[in-house]
Amino acid sequence: MPVVQPLQHLLSMKELSPVQIFQLIEKAEEMNQQRVTPSYNGRFAANLFLEPSTRTKVSFQMAQRKSGFELIDLEGHESSLTKGESLYDTLKTLESLGVELAVVRQSRTGLLQHCASNLNLSLINAGDGCGEHPTQCLLDLYTIYEQFHSFKGLRICIAGDIKHSRVARSNAAALSRLGADVQFVSRPEWQDSSIADHYISMDEAVARCDVLMLLRIQHERHTHQEDTTTYLQQYGLTKEREARMGAQSIILHPAPVNRGVEIDHDLVESGRSRIFRQMSNGVAVRMAVIDSLMKGEL
Amino acid sequence: MPVVQPLQHLLSMKELSPVQIFQLIEKAEEMNQQRVTPSYNGRFAANLFLEPSTRTKVSFQMAQRKSGFELIDLEGHESSLTKGESLYDTLKTLESLGVELAVVRQSRTGLLQHCASNLNLSLINAGDGCGEHPTQCLLDLYTIYEQFHSFKGLRICIAGDIKHSRVARSNAAALSRLGADVQFVSRPEWQDSSIADHYISMDEAVARCDVLMLLRIQHERHTHQEDTTTYLQQYGLTKEREARMGAQSIILHPAPVNRGVEIDHDLVESGRSRIFRQMSNGVAVRMAVIDSLMKGEL
Amino acid sequence: MPVVQPLQHLLSMKELSPVQIFQLIEKAEEMNQQRVTPSYNGRFAANLFLEPSTRTKVSFQMAQRKSGFELIDLEGHESSLTKGESLYDTLKTLESLGVELAVVRQSRTGLLQHCASNLNLSLINAGDGCGEHPTQCLLDLYTIYEQFHSFKGLRICIAGDIKHSRVARSNAAALSRLGADVQFVSRPEWQDSSIADHYISMDEAVARCDVLMLLRIQHERHTHQEDTTTYLQQYGLTKEREARMGAQSIILHPAPVNRGVEIDHDLVESGRSRIFRQMSNGVAVRMAVIDSLMKGEL
Repeated sequence: MPVVQPLQHLLSMKELSPVQIFQLIEKAEEMNQQRVTPSYNGRFAANLFLEPSTRTKVSFQMAQRKSGFELIDLEGHESSLTKGESLYDTLKTLESLGVELAVVRQSRTGLLQHCASNLNLSLINAGDGCGEHPTQCLLDLYTIYEQFHSFKGLRICIAGDIKHSRVARSNAAALSRLGADVQFVSRPEWQDSSIADHYISMDEAVARCDVLMLLRIQHERHTHQEDTTTYLQQYGLTKEREARMGAQSIILHPAPVNRGVEIDHDLVESGRSRIFRQMSNGVAVRMAVIDSLMKGEL
Repeated sequence: MPVVQPLQHLLSMKELSPVQIFQLIEKAEEMNQQRVTPSYNGRFAANLFLEPSTRTKVSFQMAQRKSGFELIDLEGHESSLTKGESLYDTLKTLESLGVELAVVRQSRTGLLQHCASNLNLSLINAGDGCGEHPTQCLLDLYTIYEQFHSFKGLRICIAGDIKHSRVARSNAAALSRLGADVQFVSRPEWQDSSIADHYISMDEAVARCDVLMLLRIQHERHTHQEDTTTYLQQYGLTKEREARMGAQSIILHPAPVNRGVEIDHDLVESGRSRIFRQMSNGVAVRMAVIDSLMKGEL
Repeated sequence: MPVVQPLQHLLSMKELSPVQIFQLIEKAEEMNQQRVTPSYNGRFAANLFLEPSTRTKVSFQMAQRKSGFELIDLEGHESSLTKGESLYDTLKTLESLGVELAVVRQSRTGLLQHCASNLNLSLINAGDGCGEHPTQCLLDLYTIYEQFHSFKGLRICIAGDIKHSRVARSNAAALSRLGADVQFVSRPEWQDSSIADHYISMDEAVARCDVLMLLRIQHERHTHQEDTTTYLQQYGLTKEREARMGAQSIILHPAPVNRGVEIDHDLVESGRSRIFRQMSNGVAVRMAVIDSLMKGEL
């Protein structure tokens, strides 16, 4: 019988079984309620954000500091950081200097997998281009679980720019594995048949869903500037549509929000919005992931 | 009778009464003498410097670390930091992540006031364009008080580029409210009648003043490069003029100094210069402001 | 008899006697084995890297944090950091704010010596153009000593771009003073008669040396791009040459390595490579230097 090694790295949601996902959610809950306090004092974590990301980077920094880690922050463009040196050599250097955990955001899908096999430190993928961003997915799952305490049969609608969204793809896969009923809303140009072959309207979505996951319109990944003046009325969450949502239904959005485009300005901080709660849960989820990897519990 | 809420933010000197100013000076004195040691260990402060400022940023960082705070530093241009996201949403994000104090430098006068009303964290204005920079003003006041133990009747001359200086305007207002006698020196092009209608010469200033506050020539705010070769002789503090100052009189300058322009090179570190003492006092003043805001004492 | 003042700054290897070098190596060994733990908690160190350097900067940051220091990191181009202000005034400002140790990388050879005389904080030179980089030299010496426990008669070959390398010049001088027998390998264009008048071939080098110090080809210091396709075969360390090295002989390289140019890809992490060990030793050496300067032991 082969011995299963615990996960050393978290690079993709695909590596996590439903049991492990629940384990991480439970640990995140403990972190949020401060029932446990990780104490990695005097140990070093590095953050390599080679593509810009204020929100995710700050969230990881806070999770690491709350866990006691000393931080090494490497920023800058991919070209300057790894000038004359591969990402692997940069990570091996950090390992030699004494870093035990590295969080990496960079643009080449699959590059981290390639680097990971010969490293002794633990890697966390904080977004690789249009590929994976597992801690973002986990914080969405945790925020949903916090409200409904189950995923079985939960009606979830993912709405927006499906084609360019790594959130859409990995959330849809994870939620389906956990037993949720996932539907999609998208304007025709942004539909992606490799994710779903059936799309519903926003009006159908608000009528049926328990969770409405809005996606960010990522202007920076589009080749020409989209006209967004009519987007809110056609595909977004207006106040009028919000009024037709179920009493317990909640709204998620990975942020930053384009206020007045994906969602009406006034709904961002409304009672059923979990947008800022997601951010707060993100710190707890990252503490849980870090602690689980360091302890070899996954 | 209306209940007066304590200040949550420090955005402008105008918000502080003379009693509150003395309260902050006294607390800064305690910080300097290490009679109290704030202990905000495990709590988070963020610094958003969207306009460059080495000196003020480092001073806040040191004040925060000495107070036990964990730091989140966000830099970069206004455009990149708040790309697709307002300053308000960035601050609300930091609040959601667990940040309790945010220090902001940015260029739009009044923008922080607009953001402040709906935030739970505490904001400190670290300079908004040509507007306010209250902790700079407080460190000047503290440095003067440290020498003279009173402001009543103190003869103060503010000299230099009055028109482009936020220091000039807010210091003049605060010092007048505290009972000082404030006069101004400026070459004609930099005089500002909304601040003063009477200007004296540098020779009159050195003969009469207890405190000579030199301003920095801010080349970056001028539309064309000034000729500064004759400035020192005409409007600056030469050694010859300095020799005519009173025995107890002191020199302030917000720095960085243009050596040989506003002041003779050799006077920068001379006995009556308080230029580096101001910097050192700045850390204590910022510790005092932070502690007072966090405790709701203002 | 004149009283010898302890060193306040470490700016050049020339300032260190052989006795002091052994003293630092011994202390680095203690740091590596955690027999001593410096505790500068609550005290402040600043890093001013005005030329880019990920590796050295991170190494100093880790050494400082492991020693308990709070860190102030100033980055950016020389022009922006010291805009309107000399490096001296920037350092004097940091000193006034409470910084006790400043690590500086910048491009003007000799500038730090000029600044140092009037400062109360301790300065460490982390590379000044083509001049000195003493902690890099010390970590090389420590890594050699760790293997051979002596420098007397040790046969060392320094190979590569001798002309553009600050490592070559200061290592050669220090190793000679310590009694080692130093030889050089270089293609004709990169030989420098002020360092050596006799150069040997790489084949001679691998046959005789105990330590092969490979240098990095610094494309950024060359005026035109070098053709490196034949470099490995002609002047680099191929697997075939490596097989002819002595059983105990080791390979050093200051990194980042141009894999496949100075050295065959597969040898970088081979048994006799000390390339990643050098990095790890660098943290210990910097802890030793910092502790020795702060205690006035040099």
